Amino acid sequence: MDAENFKQFASGMVDYITNYMENIRERRVLPTIEPGYLKPLLPSEAPRTPEKWEDIMSDVERVIMPGVTHWQSPKFHAYFPTAQSYPAIVADMLSGAIACVGFTWMASPACTELEVIMLDWLGQMLDLPKEFLACSGGKGGGVIQGTASEATLVALLGAKAKKIKEVKEQHPEWTDTEIIGKLVAYSSSQAHSSVERAGLFAGVKFRLLKVDSKSKLRGDTLAEAIREDREKGLIPFYVVITLGTTNSCAFDRLDELGPVANRESVWAHVDAAYAGSAFICPEFRYLMKGIETADSFNFNPHKWILVNFDCSAMWFKDPTFVINAFNVDPLYLKYEMQGSAPDYRHWQIPLGRRFRSLKLWFVLRIYGIENLQKHIRTHVALAHEFEALVLSDSRFEIVAEVVLGLVCFRLKGSNEINETLLKRINGAGNIHLVPSKINDVFFLRLAICSRISQSSDILYSWKEIKQRADEVLEENSVSK
Amino acid sequence: MDAENFKQFASGMVDYITNYMENIRERRVLPTIEPGYLKPLLPSEAPRTPEKWEDIMSDVERVIMPGVTHWQSPKFHAYFPTAQSYPAIVADMLSGAIACVGFTWMASPACTELEVIMLDWLGQMLDLPKEFLACSGGKGGGVIQGTASEATLVALLGAKAKKIKEVKEQHPEWTDTEIIGKLVAYSSSQAHSSVERAGLFAGVKFRLLKVDSKSKLRGDTLAEAIREDREKGLIPFYVVITLGTTNSCAFDRLDELGPVANRESVWAHVDAAYAGSAFICPEFRYLMKGIETADSFNFNPHKWILVNFDCSAMWFKDPTFVINAFNVDPLYLKYEMQGSAPDYRHWQIPLGRRFRSLKLWFVLRIYGIENLQKHIRTHVALAHEFEALVLSDSRFEIVAEVVLGLVCFRLKGSNEINETLLKRINGAGNIHLVPSKINDVFFLRLAICSRISQSSDILYSWKEIKQRADEVLEENSVSK
Repeated sequence: MDAENFKQFASGMVDYITNYMENIRERRVLPTIEPGYLKPLLPSEAPRTPEKWEDIMSDVERVIMPGVTHWQSPKFHAYFPTAQSYPAIVADMLSGAIACVGFTWMASPACTELEVIMLDWLGQMLDLPKEFLACSGGKGGGVIQGTASEATLVALLGAKAKKIKEVKEQHPEWTDTEIIGKLVAYSSSQAHSSVERAGLFAGVKFRLLKVDSKSKLRGDTLAEAIREDREKGLIPFYVVITLGTTNSCAFDRLDELGPVANRESVWAHVDAAYAGSAFICPEFRYLMKGIETADSFNFNPHKWILVNFDCSAMWFKDPTFVINAFNVDPLYLKYEMQGSAPDYRHWQIPLGRRFRSLKLWFVLRIYGIENLQKHIRTHVALAHEFEALVLSDSRFEIVAEVVLGLVCFRLKGSNEINETLLKRINGAGNIHLVPSKINDVFFLRLAICSRISQSSDILYSWKEIKQRADEVLEENSVSK
Repeated sequence: MDAENFKQFASGMVDYITNYMENIRERRVLPTIEPGYLKPLLPSEAPRTPEKWEDIMSDVERVIMPGVTHWQSPKFHAYFPTAQSYPAIVADMLSGAIACVGFTWMASPACTELEVIMLDWLGQMLDLPKEFLACSGGKGGGVIQGTASEATLVALLGAKAKKIKEVKEQHPEWTDTEIIGKLVAYSSSQAHSSVERAGLFAGVKFRLLKVDSKSKLRGDTLAEAIREDREKGLIPFYVVITLGTTNSCAFDRLDELGPVANRESVWAHVDAAYAGSAFICPEFRYLMKGIETADSFNFNPHKWILVNFDCSAMWFKDPTFVINAFNVDPLYLKYEMQGSAPDYRHWQIPLGRRFRSLKLWFVLRIYGIENLQKHIRTHVALAHEFEALVLSDSRFEIVAEVVLGLVCFRLKGSNEINETLLKRINGAGNIHLVPSKINDVFFLRLAICSRISQSSDILYSWKEIKQRADEVLEENSVSK
């Protein structure tokens, strides 16, 4: 494919993309196909000779779109938002053209240095304590991980290495295996599934602790668990504190948990994957009270501030333990001036890494802080609009405080009727929600997700939910 | 940024990208800046209000390019190639626009199903045994990982889970911790640094075994190591077999190692990160002799078949152990019809994943198998051209057989003089190489990397190397 052909192909794709986004409301948010739909639509083997780009373009609509769940539609309310924006797409084009792999500073200085600076910009936007920022001149600094799952795992591995070192100083006769067998990590029972998985990957015990009536993990609960485990001869080393749970957007009491962790020499990792973006607005920073006690902090710009996946921002007060824990340093990766700038390969699980900071840079500049704040505030306002609609209908109830852009609600009544309602809503496919369950109470989650969501969309979604509720309640009363 | 603005911005970027690639030879491959160059060029904080896309475009040349190591230049010979192509860039635009997160089939059926089919296409192109392919109707199948590092780790974790299960059946009284403490994995001493890191991440013993005079790990060596370790009461569970080492593109004897691993119930993972792409050419498939004995196989289309990073293809004969090992299944990720198509979140470390199979689809169709084979063959031919040039100068020697696109060479003489030569070459910055060392012999690696590399580029690189060698040898003789 030569330059001229590329220009045509890219131009055709840009038109397709703008058309897709401008008219996304007209598409059914959930596809109607069944598993295996794609196989009959494609050849069983790759072509031997080149095809035309025009044929690929027409296949996008013919074979791909029928199987797409439209995450960027205002009718998509599942999970949490996943960012998409025009400047991020353009930045990824540049990243794809340069196509460097920034594992060391030398491998592409711009890739490393822009990341350092963007993480400082972003940290300042959140008003993170200075100890987390590279520009403070201390040990701290930020890095882009692929996902919050990886951030949780990296912090866990750093904490594990740190604790093994500490214990060995006191008990030089213990083997690594003996120590690892005693290690225990904590999170709330409401933490994301990836938190428990991180424990499985690393082969350490992970205790999911009970939360209070508002689904928050409290300081006393952690302190008690640590006490119990120490009595059993175990070694507490790591706690994941969730700000904004996936189930209900609950906030663990960081201001209570951090001091306990600090006192007990337990690494405090804050997972604010979704909620962290909101901290660019001063009025939401009360939700990260106690942040100065954290050892590491993570949130996903790829969720809520319009930077396309993958861009998970993570900061350490002291990355030394992570860096040293997995520092395998072959000759082909060494270079002169090593050590004068971060080599991000030591900060992450994979070796390779794309030039992802370009996305942050483009988005922050094209929108400016004020427009990103406006984006957050709009979503939160829309969530409250939806909350008011739910409260206006006495058949429904709100099951968790609406703090940010997530509304947890249900029909008053049994789990079964709510399960039926959800099945009906997703079956109709006009809007898409996913459920959750706390203390055996099944409920529906409506997250405000799309960059283009507005009041009329919320009204549409509410009408759709009400109509399906009418049907379900009607059938239910008939069957009785 | 509205649709009209996006069209202008994207069009400006497309022009920039084609101009960058068409004139990349004119750029110095290595930047001249020092660590910290970028900070003074950028504001210390993110802008409060929007900036114009034109300002960003002009900053790309002003602040980014001075710090870029040009991986796509024909003058770049470091590491191994990292793919870049126009159709892959366009595919990533579409992936960015759809911006789905394909962790389950339901979250975007097209994302999952295209990946299944593309991995079948690719597996067929390599003539992988049917047991690895989903289209064979068995348990096998492929998945896109971010990097080979992750593939190595995922296979290790699957192998670990499988072995713990096996051992527990025989010794129900042993705890997981006891078993993990006895586990031991293997690779050659020439395996990639990420292999050793995978062992560190997972907290298991990893033995790097001696290789033969051609840097190949042999079956007897593995058999002997397993015997020794069993005598010590250890439990061998995993071996990484490298096809195409980073140091010298050496090939472990898969045909000897696989049968040993199978007999000893040790998971055989084949890491063909670079070399795997060559197997699309029948004449190179002799290098994967014994592939039918592997449990998992991995190579990086993002290295050598023009699919942009990140796209690391991995196949399992039986992914069950990986899937079950880390299956944490919260309600918000459940859906109807679960189990009828792969949920790729169980096949990888992160939860989230982009629509990466689009890149494979676009590249395979725009180039066709024949042009991708031609790309591989061109690179191999260029490597042999360079080899001939080296051999034509009696001051130099070739230190490893040239099999694919990597030439390992050195000045006859001390390590010091070769270190000086390399420093001189990279200091001049006209071409870029990285070194390696085997058995304490320091040498230079010249990898053919660029999509647009041609004979004249190889000649240019050779002239550059010869000139620097002239200087170094001249100075050396004077100083004596």
